[in-house]
Amino acid sequence: MFKNQIKKVVIVGGTHGNEFTGVYLAKYWLQNPKLVKRDGFETSVVFANQKAFKEVRRYIDRDLNRSCSHTILQSVPVLHEEKLAHKLNSIIGQKGDNKTNADFVVDLHTTTSNMGLSLVISNNSELTWMAASYLKKEFPNLNIYRWQGDEEGAFVDSLGSSGFAIEVGAIPQGVLRADIYNQTKDLVYKLLDFLENPVKVDREVEIYDHVRLVDFPRDENGELIGMVHASLQDNDYILIKNGDTIFELFDGNTILYDCNDDLHALFINEAAYYEKGFAFCLARKVTYSF
Amino acid sequence: MFKNQIKKVVIVGGTHGNEFTGVYLAKYWLQNPKLVKRDGFETSVVFANQKAFKEVRRYIDRDLNRSCSHTILQSVPVLHEEKLAHKLNSIIGQKGDNKTNADFVVDLHTTTSNMGLSLVISNNSELTWMAASYLKKEFPNLNIYRWQGDEEGAFVDSLGSSGFAIEVGAIPQGVLRADIYNQTKDLVYKLLDFLENPVKVDREVEIYDHVRLVDFPRDENGELIGMVHASLQDNDYILIKNGDTIFELFDGNTILYDCNDDLHALFINEAAYYEKGFAFCLARKVTYSF
Repeated sequence: MFKNQIKKVVIVGGTHGNEFTGVYLAKYWLQNPKLVKRDGFETSVVFANQKAFKEVRRYIDRDLNRSCSHTILQSVPVLHEEKLAHKLNSIIGQKGDNKTNADFVVDLHTTTSNMGLSLVISNNSELTWMAASYLKKEFPNLNIYRWQGDEEGAFVDSLGSSGFAIEVGAIPQGVLRADIYNQTKDLVYKLLDFLENPVKVDREVEIYDHVRLVDFPRDENGELIGMVHASLQDNDYILIKNGDTIFELFDGNTILYDCNDDLHALFINEAAYYEKGFAFCLARKVTYSF
Repeated sequence: MFKNQIKKVVIVGGTHGNEFTGVYLAKYWLQNPKLVKRDGFETSVVFANQKAFKEVRRYIDRDLNRSCSHTILQSVPVLHEEKLAHKLNSIIGQKGDNKTNADFVVDLHTTTSNMGLSLVISNNSELTWMAASYLKKEFPNLNIYRWQGDEEGAFVDSLGSSGFAIEVGAIPQGVLRADIYNQTKDLVYKLLDFLENPVKVDREVEIYDHVRLVDFPRDENGELIGMVHASLQDNDYILIKNGDTIFELFDGNTILYDCNDDLHALFINEAAYYEKGFAFCLARKVTYSF
């Protein structure tokens, strides 16, 4: 299945200019294309937001990974990342048109959260989930987060027929770590191996299914009045139960999780999400069948 | 000694806009000045670079913590941080004039390096080193780095008669961590206790004395061709010996330390130092007498 049907694969690095792992992998593969070449399909490597990288910022005008919506792609682009979204859509192929666009898009990200090796999946295609299932077998520590958070359908990987984002952490913005660089590289090579030869995989995979976002405690002006509690910090994928401590206020008080629905916390204390207004995501651990 | 001589202490947070620990401590103490009030002297709290904080950047035009030189303070300020340096000099007192300026300046920083709880000291005054010696006793894990690196004498803490910077890590830029926030807070409270009541201290203290900086491996255009080796990452204060692996190149090769002078590596892989051109600092462990 899918053998000989995959014609075009796109690897995107540097969607966020301050996530250096993807930036430097993309740069290296652009100089050494043989490393990502496989039989049967064309592999394109894109270094997406070069201007943001030069400024060591996530983005210049708006988050590129929230800018690949149909709305933006069908409008005249004005902002820097709107223009980049249009450019990516012309490189990858027309979003939503499975005859012209890439068969698979993998977008390389990192996070300041201790997420380890993770996939963030919004695409429901069979190939997406076969690849995820294959990688989960190859990398037992891999976690899969099915994301249905803000601005659904505006991710860079949504431009392809299939695809996902790789998120690896913990790593600060603006930093390369050899361990995380190599983990990401190995995951991409394994993904390419699978796309070259899509073997049979388990049709069930354990995932963390997005439920909701939890914001920081704030005052009436929106200013932070506390931070993620030490018991959560670095413990991504932890199960949170009613009464567990989740925030420590600057005045020394704590805030407890006040809900009878036990859920797992992800993307705990990710730097880029302070401005988006959440301290962590909550997800349910389920077996996903496809 | 020094009892009743200390009249003015200044705590500076947010010298770098993306180092949130100092920013939020300064904001909290500005709202709750009693927490840093001590008998015998006035404590001022300054939230230094508010514009850079809003943009979650280290600085707007130039590094404020390299902008407090006599040269800049004696020129007409043009850039944002030059203006801030002048403003700080008017708040703290005139740099170099021990009759008008603050008796002690403590500047709160964080680092993406795994430096733990550290002091960075450039000042040679007796009070500076007495305070450092006291804190080393109170916090056995505290490390002291005597810095004589780039742009000597341009640090914010150089505006006071005595003082130093606190550096705590590892923490990403743009993030608060409860553990690091609380460690920094506790260190400042202990410092204030000492300044209120300067007890007798050991006149010898173990320090890491700056020797030199080591840059990343780069190509002829100055582009990185490798990263800090995994064996160094997170191991700040490690002793490096001739033949030890220090860098991993993107092509898989490694670079060894090629020098017969065994030295300790600090500030390993700090995000802000990529642009400054060094991957880590090398220092000699010595007993410093004062």
